[in-house]
Amino acid sequence: MIPAYIVAIGDELLYGQTLNTNAHSLSKMLTDVGFKVIKHISIADERQVILDSFEEMAKVAKVVLITGGLGPTKDDITKKTFAEYFGVGMRRDEVVLKHIEELFSSRGRMMTDMNKSQADVPTNCKVIHNQYGTAPGMWFEKDGCIFVSMPGVPYETENMTKNEVIPRLLEFFKPPFIIHKKVETIGVPESILAETIEEWENDLPSHIRLAYLPHLGKVTLRLTCEGDDKEKIDEELDNQIKKVVPLIEKYVYGFDGETIEGKVADLLKEKNLTLAIAESCTGGYAARTFTQHEGASDFFEGGIIAYSNDVKMKVLGVTLDTIIKHGAVSEQTALEMAEGVRKTLGSKIGIATTGVAGTGGGTPEKPVGTVWIAYSDENETVAKTYQLTKNRNLNIQLTTNAVLNLLRKKLTHM
Amino acid sequence: MIPAYIVAIGDELLYGQTLNTNAHSLSKMLTDVGFKVIKHISIADERQVILDSFEEMAKVAKVVLITGGLGPTKDDITKKTFAEYFGVGMRRDEVVLKHIEELFSSRGRMMTDMNKSQADVPTNCKVIHNQYGTAPGMWFEKDGCIFVSMPGVPYETENMTKNEVIPRLLEFFKPPFIIHKKVETIGVPESILAETIEEWENDLPSHIRLAYLPHLGKVTLRLTCEGDDKEKIDEELDNQIKKVVPLIEKYVYGFDGETIEGKVADLLKEKNLTLAIAESCTGGYAARTFTQHEGASDFFEGGIIAYSNDVKMKVLGVTLDTIIKHGAVSEQTALEMAEGVRKTLGSKIGIATTGVAGTGGGTPEKPVGTVWIAYSDENETVAKTYQLTKNRNLNIQLTTNAVLNLLRKKLTHM
Repeated sequence: MIPAYIVAIGDELLYGQTLNTNAHSLSKMLTDVGFKVIKHISIADERQVILDSFEEMAKVAKVVLITGGLGPTKDDITKKTFAEYFGVGMRRDEVVLKHIEELFSSRGRMMTDMNKSQADVPTNCKVIHNQYGTAPGMWFEKDGCIFVSMPGVPYETENMTKNEVIPRLLEFFKPPFIIHKKVETIGVPESILAETIEEWENDLPSHIRLAYLPHLGKVTLRLTCEGDDKEKIDEELDNQIKKVVPLIEKYVYGFDGETIEGKVADLLKEKNLTLAIAESCTGGYAARTFTQHEGASDFFEGGIIAYSNDVKMKVLGVTLDTIIKHGAVSEQTALEMAEGVRKTLGSKIGIATTGVAGTGGGTPEKPVGTVWIAYSDENETVAKTYQLTKNRNLNIQLTTNAVLNLLRKKLTHM
Repeated sequence: MIPAYIVAIGDELLYGQTLNTNAHSLSKMLTDVGFKVIKHISIADERQVILDSFEEMAKVAKVVLITGGLGPTKDDITKKTFAEYFGVGMRRDEVVLKHIEELFSSRGRMMTDMNKSQADVPTNCKVIHNQYGTAPGMWFEKDGCIFVSMPGVPYETENMTKNEVIPRLLEFFKPPFIIHKKVETIGVPESILAETIEEWENDLPSHIRLAYLPHLGKVTLRLTCEGDDKEKIDEELDNQIKKVVPLIEKYVYGFDGETIEGKVADLLKEKNLTLAIAESCTGGYAARTFTQHEGASDFFEGGIIAYSNDVKMKVLGVTLDTIIKHGAVSEQTALEMAEGVRKTLGSKIGIATTGVAGTGGGTPEKPVGTVWIAYSDENETVAKTYQLTKNRNLNIQLTTNAVLNLLRKKLTHM
């Protein structure tokens, strides 16, 4: 086992002003290639705190990935503290300086002395190229432990880790294989899932670990096994998955991090169908779920965010009679929206959401969390209702997952 | 100073399979009421690791908030380890059991033995009610240090912290006042901002701390000061803000966590205007930016996600001639989209985005990152172009912020 620490430096994390996404993405990358992340820590931009943490980590970790504290402004003291910890001075790196100059000139921006100082690094480090930004990465070795310092900006750090740091770490260490296999389920609560597969779980050999990862109406089952013989553990995990999947077949939508929107996208492309979305309560979130991924234009025609009743009627063709008789949050409105968006945008399939997302807007008959979703193709238009939570953003996400699951089921049986 | 630790327990965090948002939201809540968060850690679901961490924390922290490890399934060992650490046994809490039963019956779901075991707690804890879920919170005292264990599900934990934990902590401790004041800027790089206010920054008294928090084309300037005299530090920070704002006036859109979409929403409501959005490359993200907040229906008419050229022409009225002559990513298309969405949805103002988000789709003339945005009201329709990054989701977010900033500028001078 090669133990790794992931460290984030920055007061803004401890004040709760910036969300640390680097620990998440770096952990995934290290884990995927067989390193064992044993701890994440986030600490302040304070010399002594940084030095104390380095001492602690050097005792237990072989790999320490550090993010943050490398910006051009004065609140960043990481580099100086590094030099102090390693007992070295600073030097200005000419390659980095040139890269910063080029970045600035390509963006047509003026370069300041502060920007130039980003090319200063401790003398004992190897510089790691930062393709997307001005702050270089730094690679240090001390007593067999590797320290890598990277900027806090997530896409710079992710790119640097993937393209530069991981390959160097694999050269330096020879990690064992750790394999995770995942079964992705939707539409079933964690506890029901657990009861359903209890017998199988009890029979799992002790060297295979199982975890339940619930997330917004979905539950991922994760099996983990470590070893030197990659093929053997691979096969062993596959056999367990072959046993468990038939027990929960109707909830399983994919494997190994496949997303529900990815599954739906695959089904649409496979069947050569196009999709349009009419959103009221989800307000663009459902469309965004598809369009965040490349290739959405292969099947996604577009969407109508029909926030006002006016737009529901004018663009989607919901009738005034429906709005008056049933209200905007109703089975009838959902049905007309799904059919309307399909016809207006000229797609093969239309889906729709309408509901009381909250926090306000609830009534005794339609409390916050009341949601209708609908599906429409040339043969049928159907709707379903849910009573969700009191939390606005949670309701938006749960509604989106519900409509994706409805779409998956319809497409699977087409 | 009352030092606090925030601890997350769960292998899924270290594997990089779940993003830890609790550390972020809990830090913010603790900081806001004057506790000093000194460290976040994330550790594995392993007895010895948990025990060791508790030992470490008890030495330096007065408050330890722990999230995770309380689900109904077998991978969760937090409660047992707690009992071991405090040297006590377990008991079944009847109030919690009743709450779980009610939750299950209201959702029409079957209750399992595993669910019932969620009512088991160490005998020395005070139970904290979990309004939104089945796993109770637990409050422990040991040698003047408070340990609070909460579930990993973010909205359950946030709600519990806000309504139950913070009030109890304030009763138990008397924290000093810590005040953060923030100036929110958009459309200026961190380094230019720093150069512009360098003199002011150098003159800041040493007990006021300044941080630059850059985020997607926005930079927050945060001033921090701590003390017993709330009014005095409040006034001192206000005076500094009065000095710095005039230096950077055209970039400042708000204060203290105000969002750019919130600022735009306020301007729209103040001027009694309505908004409609036509999105191509942002694919619903811009609409979602408004609709995630309550009250969007006061000004937001709706949106058209015109992903295909067909929808751009059919629904928004972009002409075939424009598409052929200039392409979908062009000034002319952006202008026609903004004007088209305003007219189609009947709003006072229309905005539009079209661009090559990436990763694919670039050409030598229009490489990935080429973006056009447009603004339209009854008097004018204008467009702007940007050359952004190679990163798809970053481009979507940067485009959204650019169009929001354009909207802010237009509305401010209206």
